[in-house]
Amino acid sequence: MTSGPDFGVETELSLVEDRIREAIRSEEPLLTDIARYVIDAGGKRIRPTVALLAHKAVGGRNVPKTVQIAAALELIHSATLLHDDINDGGLIRRGREAAYVKYGLQNALVAGDFLFVKAFQIGGQFEREIVDLTAGVCTALAEAEIVQKRHAGDVTTTRDQYLDVIRRKTAMPLSAGARIGALLGGGSPKEVEALTAYGLNLGLAFQIVDDILDVVGDPAVIGKPVGTDLKEGNVTLLVLHALNDGSERRAQLTEILRRGPRTEEIIAKGLVLIRESGAVERARVDAEHFGFLAKQALDDVQPSRYRDALVTLVDFVVRRNA
Amino acid sequence: MTSGPDFGVETELSLVEDRIREAIRSEEPLLTDIARYVIDAGGKRIRPTVALLAHKAVGGRNVPKTVQIAAALELIHSATLLHDDINDGGLIRRGREAAYVKYGLQNALVAGDFLFVKAFQIGGQFEREIVDLTAGVCTALAEAEIVQKRHAGDVTTTRDQYLDVIRRKTAMPLSAGARIGALLGGGSPKEVEALTAYGLNLGLAFQIVDDILDVVGDPAVIGKPVGTDLKEGNVTLLVLHALNDGSERRAQLTEILRRGPRTEEIIAKGLVLIRESGAVERARVDAEHFGFLAKQALDDVQPSRYRDALVTLVDFVVRRNA
Repeated sequence: MTSGPDFGVETELSLVEDRIREAIRSEEPLLTDIARYVIDAGGKRIRPTVALLAHKAVGGRNVPKTVQIAAALELIHSATLLHDDINDGGLIRRGREAAYVKYGLQNALVAGDFLFVKAFQIGGQFEREIVDLTAGVCTALAEAEIVQKRHAGDVTTTRDQYLDVIRRKTAMPLSAGARIGALLGGGSPKEVEALTAYGLNLGLAFQIVDDILDVVGDPAVIGKPVGTDLKEGNVTLLVLHALNDGSERRAQLTEILRRGPRTEEIIAKGLVLIRESGAVERARVDAEHFGFLAKQALDDVQPSRYRDALVTLVDFVVRRNA
Repeated sequence: MTSGPDFGVETELSLVEDRIREAIRSEEPLLTDIARYVIDAGGKRIRPTVALLAHKAVGGRNVPKTVQIAAALELIHSATLLHDDINDGGLIRRGREAAYVKYGLQNALVAGDFLFVKAFQIGGQFEREIVDLTAGVCTALAEAEIVQKRHAGDVTTTRDQYLDVIRRKTAMPLSAGARIGALLGGGSPKEVEALTAYGLNLGLAFQIVDDILDVVGDPAVIGKPVGTDLKEGNVTLLVLHALNDGSERRAQLTEILRRGPRTEEIIAKGLVLIRESGAVERARVDAEHFGFLAKQALDDVQPSRYRDALVTLVDFVVRRNA
């Protein structure tokens, strides 16, 4: 796991790791290997952290159940990474070869299915509302992939359309995790809604920062090359800002987005255009804005060190460099 | 649906179709289109038929729940078809372009995930045992894909290894469907075991017939070219029989299996070798054998027109030409 601040749920997070490792045991060692390859690469475990903190912030004491759901959400996330890398053609993920490059497309595809199944086997033990929330996350992820691809290279994409994609792709998993954590903790309806809104806004901020790092991140720190969004023709918030800065950049960027395939040279040129437009700074303001909304949502949650940790988590997400 | 004999559950099967169509509705029309493309192609709906007949054969009256599970099993089957076609590179499925050819690999991959999720959203409403059975089917499918690929081109594959792959790939889904149908119908432990064994043996027979049709089927009737197994290097039961017929064919077939890529000409040559070896006739005996075991398992089930239909279904599966 990437070292980050201690949010006070380290013990519970290690239980989540145990549950994940138990879930990916298979009679077929190759499946376990591929699953472990993706999961061991770590990542920030933001999803489990949010679910656990939301649970504790409402005074929840059902850690075992929350650990189960947190593990399921992380398994879904890992499955998505496996399939997304195949879809995007990304060669590097978290500083290493993408799994489909190392193990082959067919094996990676099947391993992704395997992780989805294991997540649902866990999720299926819960009551109807939680099963539906978990399935809703996965459905939203699938829909987001389709919509994002449909908007690729489309410079008429609106800010609302962009926000709708990242809501389904990144914000809903965090929001569902927070909601489930609060529900399992016996939170009041007001608290449950507050934490759902917290997760949603945290997720929007998270994805905007991801998009920023894809333009100005340090490849050695983020573990993959920059410019992958531009390569895919993804119209991110930064692209939208750059397109609308009122300069001649619009025509140049439009040309780059509309015409494929985009070579390394063209991508580098596009990144310069985006950086020079002030889009990074404007996107940071957007990320701060959603971070603010996330914190504001916590007004309806009783003060506690877990609520404090949720506030700290917003700052960590907005200010991260990887 | 491909027209077949009437097994006395036509009304329930139409409810299954309705449930499937409801499940694949998405905010994203393309996902629904791809899902419908795969599902409308029909297929024999063997999985739902077995689940429904098993339910009725034990005197079950919980048709709505059985319809749900039957729909989930068919959704899982459709998801698998989408992902398998990507893995196998098969261009034609059920007489039409494979979905990944028509809609693109990325969209087909995501649509497969979507179908898995919808299946699990349904399955997740049931009790633990049924969730685990459904997840077990999916895990087995993933493992079978990995093992089959590992054995590709390996002429030292044993009959037991072959049977283990088709057990996980084809027999377990049918067996789980029969078992769940019987459990939901309140069958006695003896009946539940009997119908589980029925489904398993029916599934083995089904897959052996599939392998036979891939050698001697009429492409216009089976809806895809023959020789796809040989192209993949799959060591099917027919290949095993042909390898072990004690003739000089072993060396020729070994050469074909070990060396890729296999051209149309080489595949045609391999098919002739298999046909001339008597492997088709020997595999038919194997299919009849497992069909016999399926029928024999029904001894522990009370006589009824549904048990009769299960017997008829065995004959239909073993004698089908598509």
